[in-house]
Formats: sequence, structure tokens, C-alpha cells
Amino acid sequence: MPRRVDHRARRQQIADAVCRLAGRHGLEGVSLRQVAAEAGVSMGRVQHYFTTKDEMLLFAFRTVSERVERRIGAAAERLGRPHTVRAVLRALLLEMLPLDEQGRLEAPIWVAFFGKAVVTPELAAPLRADAGRLVGFVAEQIRAGGNTDADADHEARTLLALVDGLMLHLLVGQTDAATATATVDRHLDRILGADTA
Amino acid sequence: MPRRVDHRARRQQIADAVCRLAGRHGLEGVSLRQVAAEAGVSMGRVQHYFTTKDEMLLFAFRTVSERVERRIGAAAERLGRPHTVRAVLRALLLEMLPLDEQGRLEAPIWVAFFGKAVVTPELAAPLRADAGRLVGFVAEQIRAGGNTDADADHEARTLLALVDGLMLHLLVGQTDAATATATVDRHLDRILGADTA
Repeated sequence: MPRRVDHRARRQQIADAVCRLAGRHGLEGVSLRQVAAEAGVSMGRVQHYFTTKDEMLLFAFRTVSERVERRIGAAAERLGRPHTVRAVLRALLLEMLPLDEQGRLEAPIWVAFFGKAVVTPELAAPLRADAGRLVGFVAEQIRAGGNTDADADHEARTLLALVDGLMLHLLVGQTDAATATATVDRHLDRILGADTA
Repeated sequence: MPRRVDHRARRQQIADAVCRLAGRHGLEGVSLRQVAAEAGVSMGRVQHYFTTKDEMLLFAFRTVSERVERRIGAAAERLGRPHTVRAVLRALLLEMLPLDEQGRLEAPIWVAFFGKAVVTPELAAPLRADAGRLVGFVAEQIRAGGNTDADADHEARTLLALVDGLMLHLLVGQTDAATATATVDRHLDRILGADTA
């Protein structure tokens, strides 16, 4: 189905343009006209793929989410076998943080999306669904890690809140990559014990 | 100096209008025209007080910051004497979270401000300065609380990242007030020990 693949690529191309614009000027700077110019397509084309700006934004957010998920998968692969639960969680959490150039390019769309989701219930719903799955996965890992604390869900929610807070702080330069990484490490030590593997 | 007081009140009135608009539609919905209409003043008046939108936003952010600080002070007063370090920190951290109607009205401007600060260095600078002072205060409290851990600064940064992450999660409904409060309590138990006072 080459036509279908083409559509997908075109939507992707537009989403990438949205991310670049959000990273440069925030979402305020993202008009239909600017997205079309940045993506190198006509305004009609953008409107063909996305009826509303929120729809375009949701797609851009999904694009970044999938990319982060792929990087998490790749990081887990790189760990080799056997690997500890702590190493898996560490890889996951660090991939969620804007620690390198790629992360710094992508993260502004997350913050912008959060900002919009706060005032747009239709955008908050998919965010909550994604977060629910992530909490489930992290809690499962914590239980597998042999933490005898009954409340793995609580630990998972705490970890993910900590990482989202660190993301904000990194983006505005309130902390740096080394400090944020140390914060994640110390928190993992606390809930899982230090990793000597 | 009644004239001066009047200017201050007028700026305040405009800042409140910005906060209400940001809470309803996000910052995208905040045009000069809308701010003037919401504040019940002329567009010329708004422009007289704020040359740029960023300046207006920074003032609105400062307004909310000061209000939160006053609430923290009032909450500390209500604790009575003697009060534990844990109780002071708990009051401070919970006031930073959108747990009640007032908090939910104010918090969107924080997220919007963070979103703008990510792409606007002039807005990131005051955010970092405020954060630095807050880290200093919280670290001082942790040291006063008799935590023998050498790295009170680290604990302070972790607590404040956790609270900013919880703020995001509360605003999009990813967590609720009871769970967020329990998260703060458990984290304080961890770093300061449970409070039986």
C-alpha cells in the first residue's frame, strides 16, 4: 500500500516541523502558515492531514512518544543479558530526560503539550492513558526487583513525577544533566538498593 | 504616595486577568485585546504598563509566586509553636501544589510560564533565581531537621523536582490530591523520618 505509507510519511514530516517550531518559539509560534513553511508543504496539505491544531499537536506528541519508546527499547537491548531491574529502570528514566541534543530538541513539545493539556480535556485524556501504562510497567519492574514494599504503584508514580519535574528543571537550566542523572541514581538506590551488577 | 499605589493595583488587576485567561485557554489565548477586555481596561492602558507580552507574563508569574509565598507564610503561622522542620517543609510543599480551587486557578500560569521559559532565556533566568533561593531554604530546613546525610542540597533539589512533577500530574488529572499529598508525606518520612509531633 504505497499510498498509505506516503500519507504516514507526510504526517510525520508535518509533525517533525511542529516539534522544531515548538522547540524554537514554543507553541504560540506555531501557526498553520508556519508549519506549512517549515514542513515544505502547502497550507492546504497541512489542513488535509490535520483538521485542528490540537489534532496536529497530539500527533506530534505521539511521534515524540514513540521515538522515546524506541530509544528506551534500544537502550534496554544495549544492556545485554543478564541485566538488573535497576538497570532497566535507569535506562527508561534517563531516556525520558532531555540529557542530550536530541532530547533537548524533543522535550519542549512535551512541556508545550502538558501546558495545552492543562486547559484542554481532550489532550489530557491520552496523556493520562499513556501515564497509566507507564506506571503499570514501572511498578511491575519494581515488584520484579524484589522490593518488598507493598506499594510498588506508589513508588512508580513517585519516580515518574520526579522525572517529569527534572525534565522541567533541565529545560530551564535549573539543574544540569549530571545532577539530574545523580538524582535518578540516588532515588533508585533508595527504592531498589545500590546496583553492583 | 497614592498615585504609586494605584499603578501597582492596576498592574495587579492586569496580571490577574492574564492568570484567569491562561487558566481558561492557556497562553495562546492571551492576546493584548483579550487581556484588556478581561481586566476591564483599554488596550492602551495594558501597553502603558507592559511593553511586551513576556514582561506581562513575568509580572503575572511574580504575582502568583508572591501569593504562594504569602500562603506558605500563613500556613507556617498556623502550625503554631513549637513546630517541626518536617511540618514546615510539608506546609511549603503542599502550598506549591494545586490541591484546592485557588491552586488550580493559579497553577496553569506556572506551567505556561515554564513552557515559555523553555524557549525564552530572559524568562528562564528569573525562574532559576527563584528556584535557587527555594533550594537554599529547603536545604537549610533539612539540615536543621538533623538529617545527617551530607547532601541536603541534593535532597532539596529532589523534593522540589518531585513537587513540580506532581503539579504537572495533578493539572492533567494523572494523579489526585490525596495521592499527591501521600507522595509528599512518604518522601518526607524517607528523608526526615516520620513526624510524631
